[in-house]
Amino acid sequence: MTDKYVYLFSEGNARMNDLLGRKGANLAEMFSLGLPVPFGFTVTTNACRLYYEDSKKINSKIEKQIDYALLRLEQKTGKEFGNTRNPLFVSVRSGSPVSMPGMMDTILNLGLNDLTVKGLAQNTGNPRFAYDSYRRFIQMFSDIVLQIDHYQFERELDQIKRKAGVEKDSELHIEHLLELIKAYKKLVKKESKEEFPQDPKVQLMMAVGAVFESWNNQRATLYRRINKIEQTLGTAVTVQEMVFGNMGEDSGTGVAFTRNPALGDPELYGEFLWNAQGEDVVSGSRTPGSLNELKTKMPETYEDFKKIAQSLEKHYCSVQDIEFTIEQKKLYLLQTRSAKLTPKASIKIAVHMAQEGLISRDEALLRIDPDTLKGLLHETLDPKTDVNVIAKGLPASPGAATGMIVFDSEEAERLQRTGHEVILVRRDTNPDDIHGMVASVGILTSQGGMTSHAAVVARDMSKPCVVGCSAINLDEAKQEVTIGEKRLKAGDIITLDGSTGRVIIGQVPLIAPTLSDEFMTLLGWAKDRKKMAVLGSVNTPKEAMQARFLGAEGIGLCRTEQMFMDPVRVPLVQEMILSQNKWERKKALDNLLPMQKSDFLEMFRIMEGKDVIIRLLDPPLHEFLPSAETLSIEIERAKLARDFEDVQEKEKLFWRVKGLHELNPSFGHRGCRIGITYPEIYDMQVTAIAEAALELKCKGIEVHPQIIVPLVSHANEMKMVREQVLESLSHVFSRYQDQIEIPIGTFIELPRACITTRQIVQYADFIIFGCNDLTQATFGYSRDDAEGKYLAYYIDYKVLPENPFVSLDEEGVGELIRMGTVSGRESNPRLKVGTCGVQSSEKKSVRFFQRLGLDYLSSVPHLIPIGILSAAQAVILEEKN
Amino acid sequence: MTDKYVYLFSEGNARMNDLLGRKGANLAEMFSLGLPVPFGFTVTTNACRLYYEDSKKINSKIEKQIDYALLRLEQKTGKEFGNTRNPLFVSVRSGSPVSMPGMMDTILNLGLNDLTVKGLAQNTGNPRFAYDSYRRFIQMFSDIVLQIDHYQFERELDQIKRKAGVEKDSELHIEHLLELIKAYKKLVKKESKEEFPQDPKVQLMMAVGAVFESWNNQRATLYRRINKIEQTLGTAVTVQEMVFGNMGEDSGTGVAFTRNPALGDPELYGEFLWNAQGEDVVSGSRTPGSLNELKTKMPETYEDFKKIAQSLEKHYCSVQDIEFTIEQKKLYLLQTRSAKLTPKASIKIAVHMAQEGLISRDEALLRIDPDTLKGLLHETLDPKTDVNVIAKGLPASPGAATGMIVFDSEEAERLQRTGHEVILVRRDTNPDDIHGMVASVGILTSQGGMTSHAAVVARDMSKPCVVGCSAINLDEAKQEVTIGEKRLKAGDIITLDGSTGRVIIGQVPLIAPTLSDEFMTLLGWAKDRKKMAVLGSVNTPKEAMQARFLGAEGIGLCRTEQMFMDPVRVPLVQEMILSQNKWERKKALDNLLPMQKSDFLEMFRIMEGKDVIIRLLDPPLHEFLPSAETLSIEIERAKLARDFEDVQEKEKLFWRVKGLHELNPSFGHRGCRIGITYPEIYDMQVTAIAEAALELKCKGIEVHPQIIVPLVSHANEMKMVREQVLESLSHVFSRYQDQIEIPIGTFIELPRACITTRQIVQYADFIIFGCNDLTQATFGYSRDDAEGKYLAYYIDYKVLPENPFVSLDEEGVGELIRMGTVSGRESNPRLKVGTCGVQSSEKKSVRFFQRLGLDYLSSVPHLIPIGILSAAQAVILEEKN
Repeated sequence: MTDKYVYLFSEGNARMNDLLGRKGANLAEMFSLGLPVPFGFTVTTNACRLYYEDSKKINSKIEKQIDYALLRLEQKTGKEFGNTRNPLFVSVRSGSPVSMPGMMDTILNLGLNDLTVKGLAQNTGNPRFAYDSYRRFIQMFSDIVLQIDHYQFERELDQIKRKAGVEKDSELHIEHLLELIKAYKKLVKKESKEEFPQDPKVQLMMAVGAVFESWNNQRATLYRRINKIEQTLGTAVTVQEMVFGNMGEDSGTGVAFTRNPALGDPELYGEFLWNAQGEDVVSGSRTPGSLNELKTKMPETYEDFKKIAQSLEKHYCSVQDIEFTIEQKKLYLLQTRSAKLTPKASIKIAVHMAQEGLISRDEALLRIDPDTLKGLLHETLDPKTDVNVIAKGLPASPGAATGMIVFDSEEAERLQRTGHEVILVRRDTNPDDIHGMVASVGILTSQGGMTSHAAVVARDMSKPCVVGCSAINLDEAKQEVTIGEKRLKAGDIITLDGSTGRVIIGQVPLIAPTLSDEFMTLLGWAKDRKKMAVLGSVNTPKEAMQARFLGAEGIGLCRTEQMFMDPVRVPLVQEMILSQNKWERKKALDNLLPMQKSDFLEMFRIMEGKDVIIRLLDPPLHEFLPSAETLSIEIERAKLARDFEDVQEKEKLFWRVKGLHELNPSFGHRGCRIGITYPEIYDMQVTAIAEAALELKCKGIEVHPQIIVPLVSHANEMKMVREQVLESLSHVFSRYQDQIEIPIGTFIELPRACITTRQIVQYADFIIFGCNDLTQATFGYSRDDAEGKYLAYYIDYKVLPENPFVSLDEEGVGELIRMGTVSGRESNPRLKVGTCGVQSSEKKSVRFFQRLGLDYLSSVPHLIPIGILSAAQAVILEEKN
Repeated sequence: MTDKYVYLFSEGNARMNDLLGRKGANLAEMFSLGLPVPFGFTVTTNACRLYYEDSKKINSKIEKQIDYALLRLEQKTGKEFGNTRNPLFVSVRSGSPVSMPGMMDTILNLGLNDLTVKGLAQNTGNPRFAYDSYRRFIQMFSDIVLQIDHYQFERELDQIKRKAGVEKDSELHIEHLLELIKAYKKLVKKESKEEFPQDPKVQLMMAVGAVFESWNNQRATLYRRINKIEQTLGTAVTVQEMVFGNMGEDSGTGVAFTRNPALGDPELYGEFLWNAQGEDVVSGSRTPGSLNELKTKMPETYEDFKKIAQSLEKHYCSVQDIEFTIEQKKLYLLQTRSAKLTPKASIKIAVHMAQEGLISRDEALLRIDPDTLKGLLHETLDPKTDVNVIAKGLPASPGAATGMIVFDSEEAERLQRTGHEVILVRRDTNPDDIHGMVASVGILTSQGGMTSHAAVVARDMSKPCVVGCSAINLDEAKQEVTIGEKRLKAGDIITLDGSTGRVIIGQVPLIAPTLSDEFMTLLGWAKDRKKMAVLGSVNTPKEAMQARFLGAEGIGLCRTEQMFMDPVRVPLVQEMILSQNKWERKKALDNLLPMQKSDFLEMFRIMEGKDVIIRLLDPPLHEFLPSAETLSIEIERAKLARDFEDVQEKEKLFWRVKGLHELNPSFGHRGCRIGITYPEIYDMQVTAIAEAALELKCKGIEVHPQIIVPLVSHANEMKMVREQVLESLSHVFSRYQDQIEIPIGTFIELPRACITTRQIVQYADFIIFGCNDLTQATFGYSRDDAEGKYLAYYIDYKVLPENPFVSLDEEGVGELIRMGTVSGRESNPRLKVGTCGVQSSEKKSVRFFQRLGLDYLSSVPHLIPIGILSAAQAVILEEKN
């Protein structure tokens, strides 16, 4: 750390962000570009840290440097601190190295006192303005520096207004203001036991300390925790000559963007207010007009400003958000910074800038945060409609949906079968509700978080979902839900907005996502740039179509269980599960075969010419049956109704459900464990795949099916299933007198599989890491339970740096993936390695996968563009290092 | 592979076991020791493998070598194959490199034909014996070699007997035998389309082939699968001159052990039968007398035999099981092998032999299979009592117990509180039954296997348990259980024998295990020899006492949750869980504190001077509450009874249970996740530990408590809990104005913890690998579910080589343990590393832990001697390599 704690604007530049804060560095940069910036200096973030180390004292070394800078400021401006005739006034502003808008404090008009106020009155010829500024300064300084509650000042103001018989502050006359200033000073004396400081230098030092203090105020601390900003960065303090946009009708203040920040169009866009200071715009107390007013009234100044704005954009190569003031026709720039843009504008601007040659395509790709694409890829509520929001929950799965309220899964199925669109409303969901979720267009729960069962399954199904909506009170017995006074019954229509978490009464028109030309251009650039293939994880042919539309280069994971969940098929599936023996089971499976086959025919047609990796049945069989709890209540009721036939029937089912019951189903009898113990199930699936493929091949349609085996933990499992699959295939091939190549791979989704990948790949043509299940077992977290119980707490309190079900845990899970990839490739250098799960499109995780050199990523359809962009960014960033 | 496929007895020795089989190698060894062994030769296991490679043909190279050996045999014996006057007869026996008693075939008296039978009749002067031998030979040869169903021969025999009007075979006269031989030969001709082979050489070659074939018969293949014997070893074939113990009253046959194989006493022990062949003893058709008969009638021969027996024991340094025959006063040894001993005898003999200087102490330690100790360490049924066994299940947890049948956990608790001993009988158990299991003296289930919930928990609790007893039919509604015709009601008395799986009606007296002097001596030697410390895993002070008695050097895992399960405390625990906020919860915990403290006081007193590692609360909180299913039935009943107050009460509890409900509780909100989210619970426990320790210290009692944190997956968790624990400790220390060192360690029982041990040990003074939970997460197996659903299948069908919950999976779980140990020690070279779980006493796993250089193993009390012996063996075996 150097000993220099204060930098004049002429000594700094934009690269000194960490030291001078964003504001200070930018002002120095603008100054050095020769732009009209009021002069000033910046006290560094190092000084802030030193302030805290010195037990909240500004030490003499820093003070001396401030004194020197102040002297230079006086020389430069020709004004003097405390001089009655030519007084210097300054603003004292916070400025952190990372943006924390509005979180810390700012003091304006510092330097005003009983004497300099007269100089200001004289120099501006506007005594009312001068005294109003002074009383505002006292109020602001007292609030921020002296920590006197600002309500007390407002009370004084109200009294004076009542006495003067006026309603607005602006109607007060000078004599009222003088009286008010007196009252304010008295208040200060009473509260702080000191006179209001009259020495501008004393004011300045107190203000600098107060800004340092504001770094640690409650809202700033919270903001940093939420936004994961280091708490020890500290703030810089920028001291700058005040200019006055409120010095009459030839003065004013404005904010402008070099391009439209909402739509991205290339036009200077902003707001302007005559005879006003910046805070008037910010506080919303006056409504600003458009920049055109400036253009009309002061065309030259406008043109000057426009040129400056353009040069700033060019200089920074990014859209600028510029604050400026005109003081008696003279233009001053107060601040410039990269503008916050809507996702839509970000894309348009990045593409335009690249096309204009302002930035490279790589730079354009890096400019877009992949996360922001999410909002562009779903059906959304028509923004033109007024909506009646009755509650808000967590936005668990994006998109919007309208439907009838239904409280249980059976009812959801019944209504869906009779042509209704329903929204399933529950406390929370569990695997028994899968049918109901399949039958619904959206899901709403009062409990659970972003990784609760409802959230995860809904995202998997790409259905809109709002969870943890604690404002709603469910009464299943009465079949109604209350929100405050409002009461909704089963059958009432609501709309969910899964992108914002809003729950809305009634129907709202939905609009399809329209992907702009710029979006498609950017996606094209990203595709050219990335190395890993991006495939789709889908459940149904419809989703496959969507995935292909959004840029998927194939299907990385086609789940087959949702094909079992179709309401028409559920009875057949249940019959299969309830079979007493292999032969009964085979008969039931024979009935399912043509249905699975028709699904695959459709899927292969949609993905013609592309790889389709099909996962054999994975979930435990009891997911296809009603829960023991439901059954036991029904049995109890049937007993009391003396319907003993029903009792018997239900008890039979109950005992089968109990027999299949597992304490920890996610770690139970599922995946290849089912395939090994009930080989006839996988045989049916493999047969359906092979028959569908051969029938299309025969018609000249190019199909590339692959089979993937879930939940392998030991090489012997893979060996056994591979032998079974090859046998099933050979039966089909000989029946059809034709054949087709179907590679057989495996999911690596258990820690043991990562450790023994070398052995497993002896029997696998390719591997895909299943990030979610792998995270689950590596941490020993049940994904369904963790969020609601302790994961949110863990993330809030930094026990975990991030949610590992969203962003890959590189240290633990990532290390296992690395081990598996390396040893798998040692054994088979041409092994194709992929990954699936939410992490497969998350930018940070994708960079990790790129470093490992994986071959492909598989995502649910609406995350595919995000995966493509992340994969491109990963390549660019890798090359940069 | 050499080209020599046939070895004369004079060419082999005991070390050629793999080549000559156990029998062949032993006979060669005995021959070379100069003992009276009928001469012969052995066709090697290589020849057997070649036989299979050559599509089940004996190739000419082997045949030539057999011809040569036969010639040498004829020279040596002075007899000749097929010679009418001086015929040679041989036995043709299988002999595998590992013992497979009775699994393969043997042919006696080979060489008999229509001519040689006359020579035999003449030479023995016993024509009846000769013709009886011949008809037996035809029958045996036809059965084994020609594969003609032996029932057909028995039918012929029956017809002749009926015709002769006799009942026993031995009553048949020569003419009957001649007729029978004729009938047998006719039968052979009919069935095999060939004459019964008369050429002894042809007989021999056919017999050798048939013995090779018998290697792959069904029962041998199954036996090898069950006993994990390589299927490709092959069998040798030993061809040996026949001697005849049935050549009159000066002949006989016997079996003798050099020491008593049941009790271990040093005395020649065996059985002898005059005028008989070995098969007469084996088949049980005649009851043999004691060896004393030989001693009395032929004292010299007896003394000769005794000397030979002693020299054989000395030669082999192990108790021998010797088969011998006396042919017309001449003693022949037919076979010697290491005797199968009871566990009790094994120990006595090993210790005696070491004391006699026959073997080293190391050798004595290696002689005892640690698994066999299990049977010696529990209360057992008094063997003198006649018992009425009504069913048999799997012996899931050893020991015996008598009590009243009870069908549900609540009832079990109620009865236990009123002073009854109960046995909980269920289909299976789940965590909701823990109270009931605590309250019972034994557990019986109709479903589940050796690693089912009931089995695992019962072993943890060291309670006798029989599972998977499918013969019993439960009818909970009627509160009765039926076994065949037998019907038992709740309240009936039964006795469980957890060591054998027997279910017995009524009470059976139990006897305490008595540990023999030799057992204690051996344990002492093992303690001296082992390097790893062996500690106890216990739940209660009573178990701690037991552990100390059985040799534990401290407590490696003191669980605290069972202290919560005491029926008196359960209401307090439930109150704590149902607390609405931290303050209510603290109040409930304050009531539990003195109870936990009194447990620790007792525990520390028992383990005075030794380490006591206490695990903070681990199970999920809902394990302490009734199940939602039970509650929902009760609510339904209360509703129908219109007891709305009860409904309300129960519904409140129901919703809390639902709130705590987890889909996968083993991977849920438990372990340090509870400690972090409800810090007041751990605070209470740590306070109780520290207060108990300081109060004893103050009385001059030496205590060494340690605290261990369960289920850590991320270093931050350990950091956080460590800080909490230190804070709680410091409060106690300052209140008591005294302090005591309490190291804080962690369980490494999740894959992520193994991968990040380096980071975790920054905050841990020691680590213990929890093998069961680690196996569970590494495989993604729910231990509670796996056995009943697929694990048994996996083991039967060799998908897994062994049950990883019993014997450590070295390839997967072991690799994680290795990674954790190595990286933990890199970070802290003095880190103490331990392990717990069943694997910690299993011999193979313990060898793995010894190779890794772990510091200690922790086992449930009755496994401690097994752990000690395994640890000693591991050191000895490590030094040998």
